[in-house]
Amino acid sequence: MSELPESESSQKNLLKELATQLGVTQRKAKDYGVPSLIIIEGLDASAKGSLLNQVLLEIDSRSYDVYSTHASHQEPRNFPLLWRFWNHTPAKGRMQFYDRGPYYLVLDGWAEGEIDNDEIESYWEHIRNFERQLEDSGIAIVKIFLTVSKKTQAKRFEKLESNPKTAWRVRPKDWKRHRQYKPYLQKINQMIGKTDAPYARWEIVDTDNIRRAAIKVYHTIIEKLEAAILEKERSKASEPPKEEWIPYREKNFLAKVKASTPLDRVEYKTKLRKRQKAIQEIVHEIYTAKIPVILVYCGWDAAGKGGCIKRLVQGIDPRSYHVTPVGAPTKDELRHHYLWRFWKRMPRRGSIEIFDRSWYGRVLVERVEHLCTNREWRRAYQEINEMEAHLTDFGAVILKYWLHIDKETQFERFQARQANPLKEWKITDDDWRNREKWDLYEEAVNEMVKETDRPHAPWKIVSSVCKMSARIETIDLLIEQLSRALKNNAKPVL
Amino acid sequence: MSELPESESSQKNLLKELATQLGVTQRKAKDYGVPSLIIIEGLDASAKGSLLNQVLLEIDSRSYDVYSTHASHQEPRNFPLLWRFWNHTPAKGRMQFYDRGPYYLVLDGWAEGEIDNDEIESYWEHIRNFERQLEDSGIAIVKIFLTVSKKTQAKRFEKLESNPKTAWRVRPKDWKRHRQYKPYLQKINQMIGKTDAPYARWEIVDTDNIRRAAIKVYHTIIEKLEAAILEKERSKASEPPKEEWIPYREKNFLAKVKASTPLDRVEYKTKLRKRQKAIQEIVHEIYTAKIPVILVYCGWDAAGKGGCIKRLVQGIDPRSYHVTPVGAPTKDELRHHYLWRFWKRMPRRGSIEIFDRSWYGRVLVERVEHLCTNREWRRAYQEINEMEAHLTDFGAVILKYWLHIDKETQFERFQARQANPLKEWKITDDDWRNREKWDLYEEAVNEMVKETDRPHAPWKIVSSVCKMSARIETIDLLIEQLSRALKNNAKPVL
Repeated sequence: MSELPESESSQKNLLKELATQLGVTQRKAKDYGVPSLIIIEGLDASAKGSLLNQVLLEIDSRSYDVYSTHASHQEPRNFPLLWRFWNHTPAKGRMQFYDRGPYYLVLDGWAEGEIDNDEIESYWEHIRNFERQLEDSGIAIVKIFLTVSKKTQAKRFEKLESNPKTAWRVRPKDWKRHRQYKPYLQKINQMIGKTDAPYARWEIVDTDNIRRAAIKVYHTIIEKLEAAILEKERSKASEPPKEEWIPYREKNFLAKVKASTPLDRVEYKTKLRKRQKAIQEIVHEIYTAKIPVILVYCGWDAAGKGGCIKRLVQGIDPRSYHVTPVGAPTKDELRHHYLWRFWKRMPRRGSIEIFDRSWYGRVLVERVEHLCTNREWRRAYQEINEMEAHLTDFGAVILKYWLHIDKETQFERFQARQANPLKEWKITDDDWRNREKWDLYEEAVNEMVKETDRPHAPWKIVSSVCKMSARIETIDLLIEQLSRALKNNAKPVL
Repeated sequence: MSELPESESSQKNLLKELATQLGVTQRKAKDYGVPSLIIIEGLDASAKGSLLNQVLLEIDSRSYDVYSTHASHQEPRNFPLLWRFWNHTPAKGRMQFYDRGPYYLVLDGWAEGEIDNDEIESYWEHIRNFERQLEDSGIAIVKIFLTVSKKTQAKRFEKLESNPKTAWRVRPKDWKRHRQYKPYLQKINQMIGKTDAPYARWEIVDTDNIRRAAIKVYHTIIEKLEAAILEKERSKASEPPKEEWIPYREKNFLAKVKASTPLDRVEYKTKLRKRQKAIQEIVHEIYTAKIPVILVYCGWDAAGKGGCIKRLVQGIDPRSYHVTPVGAPTKDELRHHYLWRFWKRMPRRGSIEIFDRSWYGRVLVERVEHLCTNREWRRAYQEINEMEAHLTDFGAVILKYWLHIDKETQFERFQARQANPLKEWKITDDDWRNREKWDLYEEAVNEMVKETDRPHAPWKIVSSVCKMSARIETIDLLIEQLSRALKNNAKPVL
């Protein structure tokens, strides 16, 4: 950053220039499709609001969004900490501001004695992962922490209090925090140490002098945007090499699946009725215990995912579950991080969300069809594990099914569907095309299971050569998992 | 509806046939782009959940959504009654189910003594308007009310209570409602009388016999879908006539606008600073009083909407306002009712939502450019008035500005923008094209003002030939309106 001019009038002129420059830079970022996330955190009375307003002034209002974080809003507390922030990540070419963000929520929870020192570490980790994932997807991240001296803070509180119309803004909590100024600042310094990263540096800005602070904020944002634009120009200039298929030769999980002994229809009906009754009851308990449940159904085309889901939900109160069928992303979804559309669908406490296909598309169809780069899908294993860890840390139960059939069984089912005028619509050219790439998919599925089977979010490979037994088995596995969760249930804070 | 077969097994077969038929009909509705809304209301223990589940079984899960209405969810109570339902209206070709809907919320509020008999009438009216608007846009509406005899209701409660795992589902409130069975049913009968309409008929379904009930539900939905598909086929067959411009020759509001005396810059700065301080304080009061505020900025291109908005928000805490710039609808938005995208943006209690352009696009650009039919934009006046009435009944303040300049002033501003490399991006070919249709727009604006200027949602036509005085005047008008609202504030229930 260049030297700050001394006189007030030249500082004012510089501010105007910077405001214009930010407008120009953001229009360029828009043209290049560069998204950015600007997180503004700070102490109480550090002028967050007015600084943010000033920054927004010269940016075209059609290209940014502001999300204000309120610790008092109850609704987002039904979801994991980062859910509301994932819901407000920027699309290509857009700027997203957080008027305070996840840091504030965690610090507030800590200061209020709601979370302890161990828990706080795990929150910092989740936030680090969040930012790294966004950055890897090309989002430029700016993090600004606004400080104010203890003396100036007191002055600003007093000024607000002296006006009867603004006095309500200073709550007893604010004065309490003011008295704890030193330990609170220590905690913030720890936080900054834990969450400063090469791709998401903290910029500490002192606001005792507001004009200087504004100049620093402008500089920080403009620099980051310009760097991101440059990076984009560079990556556009160098043509990416033609991507090769990266084979997988390790453990073959699918080869080990044994076809289960087929059920006869009478036996099936009896078993199913029993399971449906059991699941109906257990879902009531899940609702009362406020546990969110995430079920992922993956499998070969025609393996019978839909049928399993139907039999599962048949007995469940529709108020307690929701099915999200996952297809190709829409244009709007393609302008966001690939996990964004799934985060939007995550269940609230006590609800069950059923994904018919899922985020694993990244390492299956997107890998096989080269819809993302090798680097992207290889990175996805870690990203997905981190997402699932954040969800299970929140108390969610995650269960992932792979419904397995052999190639011959698939062929028979495709033919049967095509011969049935009521089921013909279920089968498309895509299905036949996917089938030709069976071997590649097999490698991709095996590697996926190897990389993302985790104790808290396990894969269950279920033979579906007999559809009826697959329906029974998937429900059995769910009952087992939910019963365990009900035993161990402990509620998280944020 | 045809005769119901007598034997149990033929009833079961009929049910299976109907399930298949519904699947087929919905796929056809999807192909034709016919959206539908199925509202399922009913008494406690009328088997809403299991009937809904049964209906969903044969529908492709990629083509429907279920919204479950919970009276206990606090978040939607920060918005008008119909907000959550507008957020869940179906896109073209999709089926939206409400597992209980607005009726339930109103009846529950009434039974709990939260709303009185006068208020209830106004809620029925808003719901009627909602349904008529959806129907007019081509959404097929099915409304089912499930009943159960007092005796069977008691039996079902007792059955739930006898199982320790489901006992929690029967709350004291349910037994209370059971004891009030007769007066509650009377109220429901009144409700049905008030909200039964040719385009949205109530179907009353007794559920003492569940199988008969299911058959009736299937029939009702299939019939309505088929009628809607037929209607769509018919309208496709008959080519719509070439639409003529419908002139407006009545009161000319714009001709009466006097250009305000231009302000000099020093005077402007002093006035502006004073207003900004005042508005900052009043916004705090609005926040405390939990009044939602909706500001609509419309006006000629280059009239200075953006500049007015900037000066207004400059002093306001960013946590209390949000700006929505309105452009052409996205593809996704075009698949919904034209008001859907605005409903999503309506402010919660205590917040200010600023629309830079708005739903009035329907009767301005869409009218002039023939982007909708004459019938559609003519109907829009009433639809918009009804929407604004629902919002103001909830306690919202609505203020609508038309920033007015003459044709010559616009020309000068266009030229100045094009000569300034920093502002050039603001001007597009569209702007020049719109300019050519100035006279048509003038008619459209005048008719819009005539049809939608209402005491609770007034139009304020502000001369913006001097931009500075327009900025001052718009803020003054807002301060006046907000002060009045703070005086009269009374909080609604739902």
